[in-house]
Amino acid sequence: MIKKIISELLGTYFLVFTATGAIMVNEMTHRLTHVGEAIASGFVLTALIYAYSHISGALFNPAVTIAFFINQKISKVELIVFVLTQIVASMFASVSLLILFGNIASLGSTNPIGTWNQSFLLEFILTFFLITVILNSSFSPKALRPFSGIAVGFTNCIESMFGGPISGASMNPARSIGPALISGNIHDLWIYIISPLMGGLLAALIYKAMQKQSSIPKN
Amino acid sequence: MIKKIISELLGTYFLVFTATGAIMVNEMTHRLTHVGEAIASGFVLTALIYAYSHISGALFNPAVTIAFFINQKISKVELIVFVLTQIVASMFASVSLLILFGNIASLGSTNPIGTWNQSFLLEFILTFFLITVILNSSFSPKALRPFSGIAVGFTNCIESMFGGPISGASMNPARSIGPALISGNIHDLWIYIISPLMGGLLAALIYKAMQKQSSIPKN
Amino acid sequence: MIKKIISELLGTYFLVFTATGAIMVNEMTHRLTHVGEAIASGFVLTALIYAYSHISGALFNPAVTIAFFINQKISKVELIVFVLTQIVASMFASVSLLILFGNIASLGSTNPIGTWNQSFLLEFILTFFLITVILNSSFSPKALRPFSGIAVGFTNCIESMFGGPISGASMNPARSIGPALISGNIHDLWIYIISPLMGGLLAALIYKAMQKQSSIPKN
Amino acid sequence: MIKKIISELLGTYFLVFTATGAIMVNEMTHRLTHVGEAIASGFVLTALIYAYSHISGALFNPAVTIAFFINQKISKVELIVFVLTQIVASMFASVSLLILFGNIASLGSTNPIGTWNQSFLLEFILTFFLITVILNSSFSPKALRPFSGIAVGFTNCIESMFGGPISGASMNPARSIGPALISGNIHDLWIYIISPLMGGLLAALIYKAMQKQSSIPKN
Repeated sequence: MIKKIISELLGTYFLVFTATGAIMVNEMTHRLTHVGEAIASGFVLTALIYAYSHISGALFNPAVTIAFFINQKISKVELIVFVLTQIVASMFASVSLLILFGNIASLGSTNPIGTWNQSFLLEFILTFFLITVILNSSFSPKALRPFSGIAVGFTNCIESMFGGPISGASMNPARSIGPALISGNIHDLWIYIISPLMGGLLAALIYKAMQKQSSIPKN
Repeated sequence: MIKKIISELLGTYFLVFTATGAIMVNEMTHRLTHVGEAIASGFVLTALIYAYSHISGALFNPAVTIAFFINQKISKVELIVFVLTQIVASMFASVSLLILFGNIASLGSTNPIGTWNQSFLLEFILTFFLITVILNSSFSPKALRPFSGIAVGFTNCIESMFGGPISGASMNPARSIGPALISGNIHDLWIYIISPLMGGLLAALIYKAMQKQSSIPKN
Repeated sequence: MIKKIISELLGTYFLVFTATGAIMVNEMTHRLTHVGEAIASGFVLTALIYAYSHISGALFNPAVTIAFFINQKISKVELIVFVLTQIVASMFASVSLLILFGNIASLGSTNPIGTWNQSFLLEFILTFFLITVILNSSFSPKALRPFSGIAVGFTNCIESMFGGPISGASMNPARSIGPALISGNIHDLWIYIISPLMGGLLAALIYKAMQKQSSIPKN
Repeated sequence: MIKKIISELLGTYFLVFTATGAIMVNEMTHRLTHVGEAIASGFVLTALIYAYSHISGALFNPAVTIAFFINQKISKVELIVFVLTQIVASMFASVSLLILFGNIASLGSTNPIGTWNQSFLLEFILTFFLITVILNSSFSPKALRPFSGIAVGFTNCIESMFGGPISGASMNPARSIGPALISGNIHDLWIYIISPLMGGLLAALIYKAMQKQSSIPKN
């Protein structure tokens, strides 16, 4: 269990450090461009999945954690401990970035560029598909499960690529909570907690229903 | 069969949502650049193949669906149901994007930048190679089939990269039908239906002929 | 043998069509940028290796073909037939691009930006490493051979990325011969024939020497 | 042993040649952009791991070499020989680039853009995570070890992407020593020797402690 907590702590820390740090460094230097930010967000997730999935499942995201719990892949204790660990890790990442670079770009926190309901709907759709890809590519016995890290990281990359300029493309309450709390930019935080959780919940329930249907013997 | 339809529905929805949504968000914010659009188009396909290929084959494209039918990988009923599902999914994706962003960039619909015969020929060549890569990398018993998702997504990425500024790089009638019908930009739609189907047909027939030749015993 | 020739013909055609077509489309539209050109060059090779390596070895390059011959992976007849096929395929690709886009950017042919000896040396080093990666990742029994397509495509991508603005980053006589002959831009062609062949030859001989050393039993 | 030395020599040479050459070519032509530099740095590492990991372990980095030694993957003699080989290879790479392009951009040597303690801390964190990903993805028996080359290269890519504009994103004393010594830009070199070694040391010790804990039988 300690190994699993360290895995979620280090993994979430580095995921948030990279995704939000890339935004801050781009704000300071204008050298990454949005394309570089999106590549960073996606590729770091692929790397961390291959580093940590055999230890803790490489969740790093409360919405993913709940989806795993609904599909009986983790226990209730793990659910609670993992979500708390992820939030703490995200706050550590934001503190590190504050020390390194100062309070730039609200430490990479997420805010709607347009209306809040536009960003709410977009985060819902993006998280729904992110978690659908996670569940389908990493659990199904017939899936090419070793390639799940590529599939999930690429999904994160493309969602950051085209969702980023609209909603910030969080898809992860922990990734939004750390920068918001440490920078004090908490006005829109509720969107990035509720919408991804709802998107993940729907993905988890659809996946569960489809698995049940599969287990009914064919005639 | 219901699982397969849901797989084609969700997969095609997200493929079209990403590929055309990226064009729309770039039109609005100028932050993705064409390179970001092409990466999004390619990587989303890799992700969806690893999420859905074990369920429905991860076709998401009427030209691919016909190529599978010609090579006896799916039945006639599946051919019809899958193509209809893909078209419906594409229309759903365009409706979602219309709700999210309004009628921007004709919802990402495809039009020739130059002459129509230039785009017709380019779409033909691009679809021919896309489907040749799909068939060779995912069916041949000696191929490294688990890597097919990478090969096919990368092909989509590079074809979007260099075909996009000329023809829009559709290579997929369903991807063009949804945005065209919902935005009303249907003037050039016939190119993006006929040309990919012809390219896919040629790829499927050449692949079939080569497989037959292989099954002749060597002396 | 016919299957192998078709494999080399289609593969080299699409490789040259993509790498040189990307340069032409960027010249016309300024939308790919050099980063997009390099990604296109690299990812198309990864895709084609997974599509064709089980048929012909996915050589697509006279320098690679000679390296395979030196290491007894193909026969003398295959060496000659493959090299001729690759040159013909490259010329077909350039003719297709001439029909599609006109004689733009010398059909993507390669010329030194600086001095010819700078480009000669750079092409030599780049081809040496490209073919070293090919031989080490795809032949050695202990290597993770299924990943060779990723290793080789990524090598092509990064060599195009940083060699492109200096020498054009050909690393492949066939890739340079087609555009040069069809566009008439043959002044510097000798560099792109001799230098890659020398780089490939050195890589093949070093690899062969290391394999021999390995087969000496240890005490 | 000779094979292993050649493997580390050629691998480190090409790694440094690519990472620093990309910076120099971008300085000369402004065509790669920082995104292209970061992609080059990351993808070359993926390629070299698949080419050389079965021979020498594909270390190419004194900080990685020490981490392997601490975890008993290499002997003391290998530690010393590999580190010396890596430094010599890096100097050869810088000499080659000096011959090719002249003394541009200090041959790609690394310097802090802001304060030295900012870069020291950033290099420490980046190297800690790079080596944590290496150890976790390539040693743990339950990890998807064949994918380690992708995980490690992607980590290098994203760390170059967002650390590059601040500290140069070396994460590798050998990569910094060659350009610094050959160009004479040695003022800040100590940062890029001490900080990555400390980051790597911490990663190695944490990994070792977690492995020990795993070997304690569960009740």
